[in-house]
Amino acid sequence: MNKRMIIYILGKMLGVEGAVLLIPALVSLIYGEKSGFAFLIVAAVLGGIFLVFGRKKPGCTRIYGKEGFVIVGLAWILWSLFGALPFFITGSIPNYIDAFFETVSGFTTTGSTILKEIESLPMGINFWRCLTHWIGGMGVLVFVMMITSLDDENAMPLMRAEMPGPEADKLVPKARHTATILYGMYFVLTAVEVVLLMFGGMNLYDALVHSFSTAGTGGFSNRNASVSFYDSAYIDGVITVFMILFGVNFNLYFILILKDWKSVLKNEELRAYLGVIAASIAVITVNILNIYENVLHAFRYASFQVASVITTTGFYTADYELWPELSKAVLLAIMFIGACAGSTGGGIKVCRFVILCKSIRQEIRKILHPNAVTVIKLNGKKVGQDTMRGINVYFAAYVFILIISVLIVSVDNFDFATSFSGVLTTINNVGPGISKVGPVENFYMFSPLSKIVFCFDMLVGRLEIIPYLLMLSPDLWRKRF
Amino acid sequence: MNKRMIIYILGKMLGVEGAVLLIPALVSLIYGEKSGFAFLIVAAVLGGIFLVFGRKKPGCTRIYGKEGFVIVGLAWILWSLFGALPFFITGSIPNYIDAFFETVSGFTTTGSTILKEIESLPMGINFWRCLTHWIGGMGVLVFVMMITSLDDENAMPLMRAEMPGPEADKLVPKARHTATILYGMYFVLTAVEVVLLMFGGMNLYDALVHSFSTAGTGGFSNRNASVSFYDSAYIDGVITVFMILFGVNFNLYFILILKDWKSVLKNEELRAYLGVIAASIAVITVNILNIYENVLHAFRYASFQVASVITTTGFYTADYELWPELSKAVLLAIMFIGACAGSTGGGIKVCRFVILCKSIRQEIRKILHPNAVTVIKLNGKKVGQDTMRGINVYFAAYVFILIISVLIVSVDNFDFATSFSGVLTTINNVGPGISKVGPVENFYMFSPLSKIVFCFDMLVGRLEIIPYLLMLSPDLWRKRF
Repeated sequence: MNKRMIIYILGKMLGVEGAVLLIPALVSLIYGEKSGFAFLIVAAVLGGIFLVFGRKKPGCTRIYGKEGFVIVGLAWILWSLFGALPFFITGSIPNYIDAFFETVSGFTTTGSTILKEIESLPMGINFWRCLTHWIGGMGVLVFVMMITSLDDENAMPLMRAEMPGPEADKLVPKARHTATILYGMYFVLTAVEVVLLMFGGMNLYDALVHSFSTAGTGGFSNRNASVSFYDSAYIDGVITVFMILFGVNFNLYFILILKDWKSVLKNEELRAYLGVIAASIAVITVNILNIYENVLHAFRYASFQVASVITTTGFYTADYELWPELSKAVLLAIMFIGACAGSTGGGIKVCRFVILCKSIRQEIRKILHPNAVTVIKLNGKKVGQDTMRGINVYFAAYVFILIISVLIVSVDNFDFATSFSGVLTTINNVGPGISKVGPVENFYMFSPLSKIVFCFDMLVGRLEIIPYLLMLSPDLWRKRF
Repeated sequence: MNKRMIIYILGKMLGVEGAVLLIPALVSLIYGEKSGFAFLIVAAVLGGIFLVFGRKKPGCTRIYGKEGFVIVGLAWILWSLFGALPFFITGSIPNYIDAFFETVSGFTTTGSTILKEIESLPMGINFWRCLTHWIGGMGVLVFVMMITSLDDENAMPLMRAEMPGPEADKLVPKARHTATILYGMYFVLTAVEVVLLMFGGMNLYDALVHSFSTAGTGGFSNRNASVSFYDSAYIDGVITVFMILFGVNFNLYFILILKDWKSVLKNEELRAYLGVIAASIAVITVNILNIYENVLHAFRYASFQVASVITTTGFYTADYELWPELSKAVLLAIMFIGACAGSTGGGIKVCRFVILCKSIRQEIRKILHPNAVTVIKLNGKKVGQDTMRGINVYFAAYVFILIISVLIVSVDNFDFATSFSGVLTTINNVGPGISKVGPVENFYMFSPLSKIVFCFDMLVGRLEIIPYLLMLSPDLWRKRF
């Protein structure tokens, strides 16, 4: 394993985090807050680390798949460890484990929080909190790749380890250009949302903060009551639409730019994603009809919540804890499914489910026609043996981690719905769950052990398991490579 | 599809059920109960069906995999539909859907009940209720194969569709002899348990009834308080040991008879099964220590409950609903795992989990050594591509059915722990769950729709999904074969 190169890239990445921290420092300056110093101190430390480790390229620069996974796995932990410091130094979050939880929740775009009172936080701190969503959304590494200079052959293993979904595609031949295009589209979509939200009466700060959270499908808000604070059908509508848009595979937007409408409309994952959204909204609207004045109100709250959960954003406009059990079960089910591969959303991803459904159908066909040769296709392309195996392994590992996490969290002795939905919501990077981790509740009451488990689940969910499984594997450390 | 042969075999099977019904009729006669007539009436009807459909062999007797699955799928439904009639006719269960639920629960060895009061049932009815466990345990079809005469080439597709676990083995060259050997061992083990229970002070009737339930890993009792009625450490101990014994792959007993100790001790599934049992008992014993007087008491209740749940029997000696959440979560987790393949127990089966764990490890190895050729082995034998695919499909279909069932059952608006554990306990053929379907509660309060979903889950769990997926597939009915 090329350890020097791992340290070099990590050094570079921490330098970038130091630079990024200057943005909230600027916000603090504008609002005349002392918390700005906290950002400057951490930025200085990170700058120092960059100067020591991130400047001199090692002799051998070649890295492979395993280095890619290790770098990505460590990078997210390091960014979170340092990103938590401003919360801790300013005393906004007095406990460092809580600050780490909040930062992991930010970068992984989960949106679970341990804060009971958000509105009294300094403006700079809250800005940083929501900015982590925006950076984490498209992926810390893709971001870094865009603004630093990595050779193409070194960039691909990182990108592959980082991109959500069973297969990472390069849109254009060069990985770095792909990253630039992705972030460009991401930037434009975010900017459009900011403008639309300001039309709805939000001030620039609120519009920015909520757009960061929507874009990253994170869910942090600067309001204790989340989006329900604004109580505006227009704002609910804008955020609903943008949550759904950010849950779509970004490659499709690129194809759209190339004016290839046909293949976008034929995309099986997109159709399944929109189908599940429509069905879930319909079921919940009918189910909660008697709680709201009329069908339009029910539809408004149902569609916002469905979009928020399936894209794993985690905003809320209604306390769905008060909804009937069927609606809550639908939300848990779509939490499990998650958004599209290649989007900023979390979860198992729609295309994995589409492929799993097809594999069940194929098995039935095999019994009916034992001698027929059958292949599984997605969007007309054959799903390879390796991809299929990867999906199955991912699914099994996901369920194992879910079960073990629920067991550990159960030590805290909260009811089953709390432990189960707490783990489900963190591993899928959603944010709120049901029962004691419902939308108007939060995660402050858990033990430090449970909080560390939740942090692990958030990271594992965001990076789709393999990097951390690899790092936990004795095989990685046992032998010299 | 050979429809005539399907009808012929089903006719034969219903004839056998008619003959089996004479046993509870005899019990009723001994106790001088009128309910005996109900058994005789149903037996007569089934005898008539046998005479019409089950006597004349069709011209073409060849059947293949698909017919095997269809026969098995229909057989279990038909046996349950007719087996429910004595409960209904005698008025013991006035609602036919409830009677069907109880019978499906019996044959699938689930042990969930809709009865609030068991001890006032006629002796013959209770005997029949527990006898369904014993018959269902080793499999209705294996039983039928043993006492009727099927050609060997026709018996194997049935046996393959019927046996729990990823692969069905013949112990000896002839399928019918295999069935005889399996039922012989089953009979001997049951008889030993009856004798041991009578040593503990049970009368013959109670000993028979509880041995039937243990052998089938079912869980029905003739006592409202289940095994806790006897409040005897000796009886608890005997039943604990026999539950664990009936959760072991029966092939291992055959190997044991051949005195091949070494391969039994080296069996990876057996080791994992015993390992999970030991770990679960240890965790729960420590966790419930402060509830019971001393460590021995805690160990006694913990080990009974662990054995009862992992083997999917469902007896109880303690109301674990009052235990801490960790203990309940451990019980849910081992409910999910289930017993060994080729045993009478349900669940996903230990060997599937062992193979899934190995496939995760293999994937990690592939990343570390991209060019190495790796194979997954179980007990030294290579796990084939088809078996691997079958396990993955099974696992995915299992999770899908679990989610959809929870969604439908949630319409009844019981809390999440009730709906979730209700589905989990039926699909794994355990019996009781947690919350409102906890050990001292039951399933009577659910809507007819939910009860039908539970029946489907019990059948799907027992027959390991594929037969019913096949029967629900439009492909099966669309074309002529």
